[in-house]
Amino acid sequence: MEYFYSNAISDNTITLSQEESHHCINVLRHKSGDIINVCGGDGTLYKCEIISATSKGVNARILSAEGGYDHQHYRLRMCVAPTKNIDRFEWFLEKATEMGVDRITPLLCDHSERKVLKTERARKIVLSAAKQSLKRVLPQVDELTGFADVIAQTAGNPNDYELKYIAFCDPDYLKSEINTIISENTPLPADVTIMIGPEGDFSPKEIQTAIQAGYTPLSLGPARLRTETAALVSVAALYIRFASFSRQK
Amino acid sequence: MEYFYSNAISDNTITLSQEESHHCINVLRHKSGDIINVCGGDGTLYKCEIISATSKGVNARILSAEGGYDHQHYRLRMCVAPTKNIDRFEWFLEKATEMGVDRITPLLCDHSERKVLKTERARKIVLSAAKQSLKRVLPQVDELTGFADVIAQTAGNPNDYELKYIAFCDPDYLKSEINTIISENTPLPADVTIMIGPEGDFSPKEIQTAIQAGYTPLSLGPARLRTETAALVSVAALYIRFASFSRQK
Repeated sequence: MEYFYSNAISDNTITLSQEESHHCINVLRHKSGDIINVCGGDGTLYKCEIISATSKGVNARILSAEGGYDHQHYRLRMCVAPTKNIDRFEWFLEKATEMGVDRITPLLCDHSERKVLKTERARKIVLSAAKQSLKRVLPQVDELTGFADVIAQTAGNPNDYELKYIAFCDPDYLKSEINTIISENTPLPADVTIMIGPEGDFSPKEIQTAIQAGYTPLSLGPARLRTETAALVSVAALYIRFASFSRQK
Repeated sequence: MEYFYSNAISDNTITLSQEESHHCINVLRHKSGDIINVCGGDGTLYKCEIISATSKGVNARILSAEGGYDHQHYRLRMCVAPTKNIDRFEWFLEKATEMGVDRITPLLCDHSERKVLKTERARKIVLSAAKQSLKRVLPQVDELTGFADVIAQTAGNPNDYELKYIAFCDPDYLKSEINTIISENTPLPADVTIMIGPEGDFSPKEIQTAIQAGYTPLSLGPARLRTETAALVSVAALYIRFASFSRQK
């Protein structure tokens, strides 16, 4: 099913962004009076009638709204240090969106080789992947955020329905194994946050800071994984764990 | 640890390929008398002394051999239709190698848009990923193989230690869920074969043929996944399932 994303909603009218309007009018040739589907980005799907259509902006009247689409049994926030080779991070953005992620926070760490990120480009990749894989919930992509700021946002001991993990290589820590945290014998978490470091891994100070902030050290198994692969394995683990649950929705 | 791959072994001497010799001599500056590590590609690691070194070919005397490296608790064969955009298939080759796969068979299917594949290039990508992730077992990459030929190679009902799956979209089939086949309550399989179709999916005839040949229909969950993502989710599922088992080795 073809649809567009917009959360610009007021007075029962939805306005599409310039990019989405261009796609709607110039690419798909829609015009006033056409019925289109618009995702609010929060899982709500709106059936709308186009009331004014220019490639600068499409306005559509909401005819009906249905919620609860594409609900996952967990909310996943991935905090990942962008890779030096940006292709690798962008590939992760696409794959994570396909499998299902709610929020991606690009991390700036002590050992980060990449210290700048074009957030708009990252968001376009996520939007494109979300449309291609028919996601009704558009993942949020944050600006590049310092490690300490993310810790400050997420500090505090997790409750029974919250899991916070930091994955790193140092073998001198006792860690939870990825396959045990997604075991069917583990209660369903509501909120999962996973931190993945840069090529040079997290610094010892960052690891200590995260643990003090309530993060559990996480092992992603015995393989030597690149940053973007470690992040992918984390997203895949939760996707696979809850695959059949999600299907029931 | 730095090492090279070669299965050219005779009379206690290992010969490196021209490419590996170039890496050994011109890049890493090794010379006669140096001690190097060579992987046989089967999990055996050889400690060798270089006895003759030219960029055309390095000969080394085997001093010692240790087996059983990088043993996985399963052997995974992925039969995947290469994507129209070859970059996507090459991403899969790299990521599957990082996570662990034993054999990759590029599939030629009824709906394949890509009908040719540069196998040598695919093997170089796998070799490079195997070295980067310190794999001791080099995944085998087959030539592009017709669907019927793979079925002929793998026909017959699987035994208790063998799993054969074909993943496809048609919802009218009863399928095994990816998260149940990797459940800790499922016995450890020894051999797993998973077939992933092209962008246009397997044809109804191919699906019937596979099922008659003992393949079980497989669901990879509710998300709409691209070919290479479906293949990655399959590899990740087994990697994650056996992560801590592998660690014990």
